Amino acid sequence: MLLRKSMDEFSFIEYLKKKMPPSSQVSIGIGDDAAVLGISKSKRLVVSTDMIVENVDFRIKTLRPEKIGRKVLAVNLSDIAAMGVSPTAFVISIGKPPYITALWLKCFYKGLLSLARQYNIACVGGDFSRSQEFFASVTIFGEALPRQMVKRSGAKPGNWIAVTGALGGALLKHHYDFMPRIREGLFLAKHIKPTAMIDISDGLVQDLSHILKASGVGAVLDLDKIPVSRDARKISRGNEKKALASALSGGEDFELLFTVSPEQKRRLEKIWMKEFPKVSLKWIGKIEGKVSRISWRRNGKKVALSKLAQKGFSHF
Amino acid sequence: MLLRKSMDEFSFIEYLKKKMPPSSQVSIGIGDDAAVLGISKSKRLVVSTDMIVENVDFRIKTLRPEKIGRKVLAVNLSDIAAMGVSPTAFVISIGKPPYITALWLKCFYKGLLSLARQYNIACVGGDFSRSQEFFASVTIFGEALPRQMVKRSGAKPGNWIAVTGALGGALLKHHYDFMPRIREGLFLAKHIKPTAMIDISDGLVQDLSHILKASGVGAVLDLDKIPVSRDARKISRGNEKKALASALSGGEDFELLFTVSPEQKRRLEKIWMKEFPKVSLKWIGKIEGKVSRISWRRNGKKVALSKLAQKGFSHF
Repeated sequence: MLLRKSMDEFSFIEYLKKKMPPSSQVSIGIGDDAAVLGISKSKRLVVSTDMIVENVDFRIKTLRPEKIGRKVLAVNLSDIAAMGVSPTAFVISIGKPPYITALWLKCFYKGLLSLARQYNIACVGGDFSRSQEFFASVTIFGEALPRQMVKRSGAKPGNWIAVTGALGGALLKHHYDFMPRIREGLFLAKHIKPTAMIDISDGLVQDLSHILKASGVGAVLDLDKIPVSRDARKISRGNEKKALASALSGGEDFELLFTVSPEQKRRLEKIWMKEFPKVSLKWIGKIEGKVSRISWRRNGKKVALSKLAQKGFSHF
Repeated sequence: MLLRKSMDEFSFIEYLKKKMPPSSQVSIGIGDDAAVLGISKSKRLVVSTDMIVENVDFRIKTLRPEKIGRKVLAVNLSDIAAMGVSPTAFVISIGKPPYITALWLKCFYKGLLSLARQYNIACVGGDFSRSQEFFASVTIFGEALPRQMVKRSGAKPGNWIAVTGALGGALLKHHYDFMPRIREGLFLAKHIKPTAMIDISDGLVQDLSHILKASGVGAVLDLDKIPVSRDARKISRGNEKKALASALSGGEDFELLFTVSPEQKRRLEKIWMKEFPKVSLKWIGKIEGKVSRISWRRNGKKVALSKLAQKGFSHF
C-alpha cells in the first residue's frame, strides 16, 4: 500500500537476480527456462516452475478440469523441453476454494496424471491449502548431461533462427491441447545442439527478445516466413495483418524457438523431416549484430513494424 | 459442484499415492516430509514443497511482509531438516493481488532472502502471477548421501520418542520467528541416525501419528513429560489443561520429533547438551505395539485423553 509502482514478472526476476549472489551449486540461475544444479560431475539437475491461476489463466465455469490439470503440467514440460532435457518428476501445490469439489479435483488430476504417464514422469510430492480462487503451481525436474543442455544465451551473429509448428491464435484452443515439444527438444539437443533455445509462451517477439538479451545479439526476422497458424487466421477472419500480429505476439504457442549455425542448419534440414514428419520447421530470420533488437524484412526488404504488433503477451 | 465431500490434505496425498505408480527414480515418494530422487549411485536429491496463503496462514493487515517471506522459506527448511538433510536451493511461485505493492513485495523478499543467506541457500527460479489473494509456494532442494536420510517409517517397538524445544502456543509469536532445526536435524542424522523423524507442523499428536502410520507401530506418551512452552502457558492463562492441549495439538511448533533405540538414546544423552546447550531435548514416551495408536500415561499410570485434546491442527 506504500508504493503504487507495479512490478511485473521480468523486473521481479531481475530484482531476484541482483539480490541473490551466484552460488557454486548453480550453473544456470534465475532467468533461463529452468535452473540447473550441479549435482555431480557427470549430471545436472534441471529445475523449472510454472503455475496457473484461476481468472488469470482460465475460468472454471467455461473449462473442463481435465484440461486445466493437463495444462499446468504441459507448460512445465515445455520449459524443460526448451532446455533439451528429459523430465523425470514433479511436485505440485494446490490452492482450493470452497466451490471446488472433490470430483472436480479428481478430474483435474486425471488430466494431469494422464499427461504425466505419457512421459513417464512421477509426481513426488505436493502441498494443499484452502484459498479464495483455484491455483496450481508445479515444479518440475529433469536430469541431463552437462553438455546436453541448451541455454538462452549462446546465439551468435550469423546464426539462423528456427521455429517449430505454427504460431498465433493459441487462445482459441491450442494452449490447452498442445503437446509439449519434449521429443523435439531432446532430439535437437542431442543431434544438433542449437546455440540457444526457448519455448514460446509469451509470444515469438517477446521470447526471441529473451534469447537476444541473454546472448547480447540482435536479429532480423522475415515477416513473410513467419508460420501463421490456421487458428490465427480463424480468429482474424481473413485479416492477414491481424493474423500475423497474433503469430508474433499471441503467446501460449509452446513451440520451440532456437538458433543454429549455418552448418547446423544444413544438417538439421537433412534429418528433421525424417524424424518429425508431422512437425513443420521454419527458418524465420537470422541473428545479426550486437544490439538486442529485432529488425524486420518483408520479401527481403526492410520494413518498420508498429510497437503494438511487436508487443508480446505480458502476465501483467 | 458435483460432489459435496471435501478432500483434505491427507486424503489428497493418499489419493495421489494410489494413482501414481512407483517410479524407479524415486526412493521415497509422496507422503514423507520430502521426496527423494536417486540422482546418482552416491547421491540423493531431496525435494519438498510447502506454501502459505493469505487469510489461511496469515493476514496482510496485521503482519509485516518480512515475517511472511521469512516464514514460507522457514517451513520448507523445517521439512528438509526433518529428513536430516542440508538444503541447497529453492524456487518460489508467487500470486500477487492488486493491493500488494512493489515495496511490500521487496520487504517480503528481504525476510525470505535474509534467511536464505543465513543457510547459504540459493534462489534458482520462480514464477509470478496476478491473483485475488497473496500466496507463495516454495519448492526446496537438498542433497544427501543415501544412508544419511531419516524417513518417517523406521520407528520400532522399544524405541524412545524425543522432541526438541518446547511445544504449544506457537500461534502467539513462535511460528513466525522459529529457527528451522537444520543443524539439529543434520547432527542427528549424522551422529545418531534416528529410526524415524518428522518436524512438528500439524501438532505433536498428528505428526506422531504420521510416524506411527508410516512405521506400522503404536506409542505410549507420558503427559507429564511433554515440554509445554511458555507461550502455551501464556495463552492458557494458568489453565494447565489448556496449555497441555496446546502443546499436544497447537501445531506450527517446527520442532523435531524423532525415535531412537535405547542404545542411541544413551549415546544421544551424552552428546546433545554439549552440541546444543540452548536446545532442550525431552523423552516423551516410547514406541509400543503394532497398532498405529497413541495411549497416554500420567506419572506412570494409564489415562484416557479426550479426542479434542488429541486432535491436531488440520489445514481443512
